[in-house]
Amino acid sequence: MFESAELGHSTDKEAFEAAVPVLRAELLDAQFELLDLKKFAVVVLINGIDGAGKGETVNLLNEWMDPRHIQAWAFDAPTEEEAERPFMWRFWRALPPAGKIGVLFNNWYTEPIRERVERSSKKADLDQRLDEIRRFEEMLTREGVLLVKFWFHLSKDGQKKRLKDLEKDPKTRWRVTERDWHFYELYDRYRDVAGHALRLTSTGDCPWTIVDGSDERFRALFVGRTLLDALRRRVSAAQHQWAPRQTAAPLPHPIDALNLLNSLQMKHEMSKSEYKDQLECYQGRLALLTRADAFRNRSLVLVFEGADAAGKGGAIRRVTAALDVRQYRVVPIAAPTEEERAQPYLWRFWRHLPGRGKAVIFDRSWYGRVLVERVEGFCSEADWMRAYAEINDFEDQLARSGAIVVKFWLAISADEQLARFKEREAEPHKRFKITEEDWRNREKTDDYARAVCDMVDRTSTEIARWTLIEADNKLFARIKVLRTICEAMEAALAQ
Amino acid sequence: MFESAELGHSTDKEAFEAAVPVLRAELLDAQFELLDLKKFAVVVLINGIDGAGKGETVNLLNEWMDPRHIQAWAFDAPTEEEAERPFMWRFWRALPPAGKIGVLFNNWYTEPIRERVERSSKKADLDQRLDEIRRFEEMLTREGVLLVKFWFHLSKDGQKKRLKDLEKDPKTRWRVTERDWHFYELYDRYRDVAGHALRLTSTGDCPWTIVDGSDERFRALFVGRTLLDALRRRVSAAQHQWAPRQTAAPLPHPIDALNLLNSLQMKHEMSKSEYKDQLECYQGRLALLTRADAFRNRSLVLVFEGADAAGKGGAIRRVTAALDVRQYRVVPIAAPTEEERAQPYLWRFWRHLPGRGKAVIFDRSWYGRVLVERVEGFCSEADWMRAYAEINDFEDQLARSGAIVVKFWLAISADEQLARFKEREAEPHKRFKITEEDWRNREKTDDYARAVCDMVDRTSTEIARWTLIEADNKLFARIKVLRTICEAMEAALAQ
Repeated sequence: MFESAELGHSTDKEAFEAAVPVLRAELLDAQFELLDLKKFAVVVLINGIDGAGKGETVNLLNEWMDPRHIQAWAFDAPTEEEAERPFMWRFWRALPPAGKIGVLFNNWYTEPIRERVERSSKKADLDQRLDEIRRFEEMLTREGVLLVKFWFHLSKDGQKKRLKDLEKDPKTRWRVTERDWHFYELYDRYRDVAGHALRLTSTGDCPWTIVDGSDERFRALFVGRTLLDALRRRVSAAQHQWAPRQTAAPLPHPIDALNLLNSLQMKHEMSKSEYKDQLECYQGRLALLTRADAFRNRSLVLVFEGADAAGKGGAIRRVTAALDVRQYRVVPIAAPTEEERAQPYLWRFWRHLPGRGKAVIFDRSWYGRVLVERVEGFCSEADWMRAYAEINDFEDQLARSGAIVVKFWLAISADEQLARFKEREAEPHKRFKITEEDWRNREKTDDYARAVCDMVDRTSTEIARWTLIEADNKLFARIKVLRTICEAMEAALAQ
Repeated sequence: MFESAELGHSTDKEAFEAAVPVLRAELLDAQFELLDLKKFAVVVLINGIDGAGKGETVNLLNEWMDPRHIQAWAFDAPTEEEAERPFMWRFWRALPPAGKIGVLFNNWYTEPIRERVERSSKKADLDQRLDEIRRFEEMLTREGVLLVKFWFHLSKDGQKKRLKDLEKDPKTRWRVTERDWHFYELYDRYRDVAGHALRLTSTGDCPWTIVDGSDERFRALFVGRTLLDALRRRVSAAQHQWAPRQTAAPLPHPIDALNLLNSLQMKHEMSKSEYKDQLECYQGRLALLTRADAFRNRSLVLVFEGADAAGKGGAIRRVTAALDVRQYRVVPIAAPTEEERAQPYLWRFWRHLPGRGKAVIFDRSWYGRVLVERVEGFCSEADWMRAYAEINDFEDQLARSGAIVVKFWLAISADEQLARFKEREAEPHKRFKITEEDWRNREKTDDYARAVCDMVDRTSTEIARWTLIEADNKLFARIKVLRTICEAMEAALAQ
């Protein structure tokens, strides 16, 4: 793994000074082509052994390239805000938009490797985290991100020599701490763990590049040229539009008329007074649950999806009525903003994740990809097919960080929908709620039904279950929503 | 996950009898198109709950399709031969060649799920195996295999009803065993573990299809139609040649002249008598090691790669001279046979893996893909780039099954190679060893050197290290090969 990086590569001063101006000009050109295209983002990972020139190289890249379009992030201990959210949240925040370069110094690899070196995690834990990383990086790649991963290496002798040299010179002696020597003791173990991690995460799409860190001129040229090659190749590939092709088996066609939606029993009676009683009861329970001590270390993520005019808004208002206004946020998901379109699909949902003790209510959500985008052809089949697994991974991370995830599909019958559409058109103050598009969507009822059933079958998991709400009777629907949330919270907080 | 499969789908007799002849004709057509194309193989996985119609469906597929081109495999407890090799070996043996369909009934999912249900493995173990499966299936997919995965499901009530019905009828009572009821007790746990496994292995490229197994006519039509759709789509995609594109960062270009090969110290003196002594010594050690008790549960896999005329054959003969002829096999790797070309790349190496207490010596190997195929352009960059990770996975499986893997690159200097070429041409009995191609290869020395260095950097891992052999001096080279094998075996057997 580290063979070539221990040969002691070096570049003399003269060669370096001749090469740098050319390389800088080429890097700048590539950077502007990237910016002009605005089709993909570049994520550069800088990892490896301390003292092998990671920081210096980041500084150099900043110096060589246009600093307006490259941003370096160094990750230290997580902030309070970060610690309250899934592990990957801080890295999602740092992802550059299309056209820009992000340099991530000590990133998602740092903690899993360090914990294993210090034996605070087991081999199986490390492997599981590496597996998650591989899935995450695969998702980034499929979203178009160019990922360039550098591992800075020093041989054990090289490391020792560096520390001794620093200690010898009174001017640099302060730079060598006890921690450095402690780390040197752990060198062999660190090398083994890192080698293992590199092996499991070096794939054809996201290979690692090992950098011989012993000579600062060599490593600077090496990193610069490798980054340049990567940029040039991807820019030239991106100039030819290229859609991923789905050649896997298509999802099965229904062979009978029975599906999750039309097998719902839609007739439910509920009197006004019964509704009032139950509303009060469940809102009270919900209010208590969100104020419970046990909830302080948890969070609540509610997802509302449903047919047009199924009553999502009304149901959401009955939920928020039970919550403290400082505690929740409703996030309505509409068409993505320009900023959001320049990011991987899930980015715009990650940014809204709640901290501890908080609730976020998504009015429409990340399921747009497998619902409207699928049915309307806004994304390719390959994109929505991989979305099921990516969404499950996302919700898995949410759940493991303590979030209680409750997902609703509000279903109404075609007749009831028609009646509501007509009612909306008739009432001036509701007319804004109904558009041409709603009428068009009605014609695609079967496609939407198929998409909803596939969504439930593929993303109703042990970590985040879907609840189908029979919403022809609005009162019944609201109560069932509230009851489901209360029960999910009670089960989660009792653990 | 199982929502739609618990709705109680069913197909009445009349509809079934009308549909079957059409479906059969279409399946046969698709099967023959597949056979004509001969571009990809189809692997159908049949998994799920007992009693949900797995066996019946396999029989039906056999009956409906042309039995000469579809083969069903049922995997029970491994045979002795299988138990001696890596877990996946038996499944590699069952892979169908391009143009054919293999139906694998109880396959690589069965054991990991069963062990977890019975709590003989931990959650982390299961997750690791699922991760390996995902990588294996990804490799199959990238090799062009169409993978169609069916999970047969029955609700808990459905399972109970089935058992009760069988017990009621004196003619079928014998079919219900205590094991069935024991299994019924475990139903909830099985469902949870299976749901988890399906979630982690349902990807965009290899999605699971859940089959409602409660009605035999419905499930037959459902499986048949889903398989038909999958065949049709892939046949139509395969008719347009489509090469994978590599848009990831290219491997770094060398920026100085220093590399692993030219930094070898090639001058080594060894007198004839010194050679004879050492040869005897190491051959004796090797003979003892391969006869040691500790070796009975291990195996030895030697990989010889090297420049033309570097002396691979001579070195191999010095190794085999120390071995019992019943114990080893030398596998020379030349161009793949027709049978091998119809399979995923690694298939032809899997078939030669040694059983316990045996040695296999590969004279050239699976590294051909990242050496000659890369340099000569026999495969795409995307193919050889992913090969590093696939090879590492392969060797990891080898090592975990007890194989000691020792890999050699025999390096010679350009001058020495030229001298040997000329000598070969001059001697009639050696002339067959040198071809036009050898001369051509010499012109690509730099490309080959780069490929060798990348290979060592990317596949010399903690599980299977590369040893570079300075082979200008043949005597020195042979001794170093023997010593390296002895030391590797001693280290492995001492564990």
